[in-house]
Amino acid sequence: MNFKSLSRFTSLILVVEAAFMLPALLLSLICRESRSTGAYLISLGIILLLAGLLVLLSRGEKAGEFYEKEGLACAGISWIIMGLTGALPFWISGAIPAYIDAFFESVSGFTTTGASILSEVEGLGKSLLYWRSFTHWLGGMGVLVFLLALLPQGSRGSGFTLHILKAESPGPDVGKLVPQLSHTARILYLIYIGLTALDILLLSFGMPLFDAVCIALGTAGTGGFAVTNAGLGGYSPYVQWITTLFMFLFGVNFSCYYLLIRKRPGSVFKDGELRFYFLTLLGAGLFIALNIYQPGQGAEETLRASFFQAASIMSTTGFATTDFNLWPSFAKGILIFLTILGASAGSTGGGMKCIRFQLILKDLHSNLRRMIRPGRIYLVRSNGKPVNDGVLSNLRTYLSAYVVIALVSFLLLTLDGKDLSTSVTAMLACFNNVGPGLEGVGPMANYGSFSVLSKLVLIFDMLAGRLEIFPIIALLSRTTWDHR
Amino acid sequence: MNFKSLSRFTSLILVVEAAFMLPALLLSLICRESRSTGAYLISLGIILLLAGLLVLLSRGEKAGEFYEKEGLACAGISWIIMGLTGALPFWISGAIPAYIDAFFESVSGFTTTGASILSEVEGLGKSLLYWRSFTHWLGGMGVLVFLLALLPQGSRGSGFTLHILKAESPGPDVGKLVPQLSHTARILYLIYIGLTALDILLLSFGMPLFDAVCIALGTAGTGGFAVTNAGLGGYSPYVQWITTLFMFLFGVNFSCYYLLIRKRPGSVFKDGELRFYFLTLLGAGLFIALNIYQPGQGAEETLRASFFQAASIMSTTGFATTDFNLWPSFAKGILIFLTILGASAGSTGGGMKCIRFQLILKDLHSNLRRMIRPGRIYLVRSNGKPVNDGVLSNLRTYLSAYVVIALVSFLLLTLDGKDLSTSVTAMLACFNNVGPGLEGVGPMANYGSFSVLSKLVLIFDMLAGRLEIFPIIALLSRTTWDHR
Repeated sequence: MNFKSLSRFTSLILVVEAAFMLPALLLSLICRESRSTGAYLISLGIILLLAGLLVLLSRGEKAGEFYEKEGLACAGISWIIMGLTGALPFWISGAIPAYIDAFFESVSGFTTTGASILSEVEGLGKSLLYWRSFTHWLGGMGVLVFLLALLPQGSRGSGFTLHILKAESPGPDVGKLVPQLSHTARILYLIYIGLTALDILLLSFGMPLFDAVCIALGTAGTGGFAVTNAGLGGYSPYVQWITTLFMFLFGVNFSCYYLLIRKRPGSVFKDGELRFYFLTLLGAGLFIALNIYQPGQGAEETLRASFFQAASIMSTTGFATTDFNLWPSFAKGILIFLTILGASAGSTGGGMKCIRFQLILKDLHSNLRRMIRPGRIYLVRSNGKPVNDGVLSNLRTYLSAYVVIALVSFLLLTLDGKDLSTSVTAMLACFNNVGPGLEGVGPMANYGSFSVLSKLVLIFDMLAGRLEIFPIIALLSRTTWDHR
Repeated sequence: MNFKSLSRFTSLILVVEAAFMLPALLLSLICRESRSTGAYLISLGIILLLAGLLVLLSRGEKAGEFYEKEGLACAGISWIIMGLTGALPFWISGAIPAYIDAFFESVSGFTTTGASILSEVEGLGKSLLYWRSFTHWLGGMGVLVFLLALLPQGSRGSGFTLHILKAESPGPDVGKLVPQLSHTARILYLIYIGLTALDILLLSFGMPLFDAVCIALGTAGTGGFAVTNAGLGGYSPYVQWITTLFMFLFGVNFSCYYLLIRKRPGSVFKDGELRFYFLTLLGAGLFIALNIYQPGQGAEETLRASFFQAASIMSTTGFATTDFNLWPSFAKGILIFLTILGASAGSTGGGMKCIRFQLILKDLHSNLRRMIRPGRIYLVRSNGKPVNDGVLSNLRTYLSAYVVIALVSFLLLTLDGKDLSTSVTAMLACFNNVGPGLEGVGPMANYGSFSVLSKLVLIFDMLAGRLEIFPIIALLSRTTWDHR
């Protein structure tokens, strides 16, 4: 393990985090939330102290080569440290008295899960609400990708940047938009900022600006923290439809937007994953609407509720306008299916990702045909091009790891003695970065009553889900820590 | 598709099934159950008629070559036909008025699931109870394997027999005990008959002979149909401990017994899967005991209940001595974990099988190390020997198919509007051939209230589980039915 590189990189992450905490500090000053101001200042002090220590540690000879394992470990460690330090304002201000709860809330924010331990959020104060929502935005596209975007072009070997991008970007394959990775990162962030700004603008016509900013940040990162206790149920139909649209948009692979900007809409609309994502969402929304429709209810109201919830869960945002825990079983079954499926690769959404599910089905079909008729070669294709064997092999490893982590996490959660639906959906909602599950962790409930062990398990699941498993389990492998 | 071979083979299966129905017919005559006698006679008539028609269809030129796909399709089709015809006595006698229910019960029997649509079994009459339990026994080791055992040595090319054995035998790899496959099949059945006889003998000291026979048949096949409404709760502790032991024994890979007979106990006790199976069961039993222990209860009673249930679920038998649906969450979580895990390959048990779970973990670990340090080769080993790449590839395909079938089945089951735990555990209990789940399909409940669609989905799951997925999904693939 190249500890010097790791320390240097982690210190950079901490500096970025500190920089992004400044607007929250400013907001606390404007709103005269003195306890929060104090908390931000102390947090900033601790973060900068830590960053300084890490810089001192990484002094000395040249940092050396940067391999896959450093990329994996870097991503894993920096996300854990972001979670640990991002929790400080909640804890120091006293808004969340137990540190484990603050840690849970912070990891839930950065991983864009949106699972909360708070039973009511309105007492947090504006600056903490803003910070909570902002962690979604930063975590959505990824702080490591942000760092890459800052790097001057060609400043490092591609080994460094590629491994980082690989480890933090969602999806089975890294989509390089342009040859230069730092340029790719910059384009991604520009699209991200543009879409977020548009969302804020459109939302601000229907709600206070502060709410619009926070909800847009949570939508952009597909996070799901709200700023009122009623979630999004208290806002107008206009706001709900706009949010439905943007939850869908932020679940689309960002390279589609790049192609649109480059005026190549043809290849966008032929994209297999985009079609699958759109059609699944459309189908899910319609089926849910049929299932939840009640004679007295208006059609618009039913469609709004069903499409909002389908888009919210499939994009893994997790906003709620209604208590879908009270819906009939089939609608809940669809939501669970969407929880696991998730959004598109290269989006800010979580879950298994549509493209992975498509590749699993195609791989399954080709293997089945090979089994029925051995000796023939059946290629797995995606958008017409054959899929690399390495990608398929990684995909299968991902699925195995997914199943094993899901089973073990579930078993550990049952130690809390909660009912089965709560344990299963808590695990699924955290592991797929959705947020709300059913029953005890339904949209009107919260994660506060879990034991410390369960919270740690769920924190692990959220991180493993956001980083797509490998950077987190790599930290558990002795091979990663070998001194070569 | 080689339809002539397929027809000929299916007719053989039907003749075997008819032959095995004779003892049940005899029993109905002895017990003067005239409605059952009539039902058996009509059923036999229909079965033989069908067999005759298939023989006529398969006349003519030589049957031609027999490839993988014929092996897969043969297994799939003959199991469906066994289920359809095995249901006739229940339906014609009027004991189960709806044919879909009788079909469900019969498939549940042959696949050794033990899920029942009956709310009370004591009214069935002895001969039907015997037939119900006997389907477990026949399905446990497999009727196709039985046919192989009957074949004269060297009567067919190995292509024929190997593909059949592959398709019907549980586990990721076919264990050939001796070079001759028909000889292997005979050895397996001799061990099976010997162990069943021993179980009957030991049980007969603690219960009526009829009950002992039926319970032993259900234990041997790891099925789980009982002959009293109270399951195994009404019998003595002696009977419960004996059944615990035999449920464990029938979940062991039968090649272990062959090695014991050949006086090579050393290699048996070093077997990785046997150790994993034994230690997991031991751990599960102890953890459940700790979780369900109540101060007023005796230690023996607690241990008996926990080990009985752990062995019952892990061997995928599904007998119950108590309503474990009332147990605390952790104990239920362990049972769900054991449901998915299942028994050993080459046993009569179902589930994913210990060896598959072990290989998934090892494959995961080796792939992870390859990801951390590319360029090195990490072999997956089982019992010290490197595992063939083809086996690993099949394993990954199996896991993908398992996950996809589980998700889709669950979604279809939610259409019934039952609660989430019922839908999930009904799917898991049927797909892994266990039988009882939780809540609405708990050990004291039954599957009678599901819709026809749900019953068809669960029948598919039971067959897919017993035949380890591929023979059943191969029937859905166009490639299987191609005329080459």
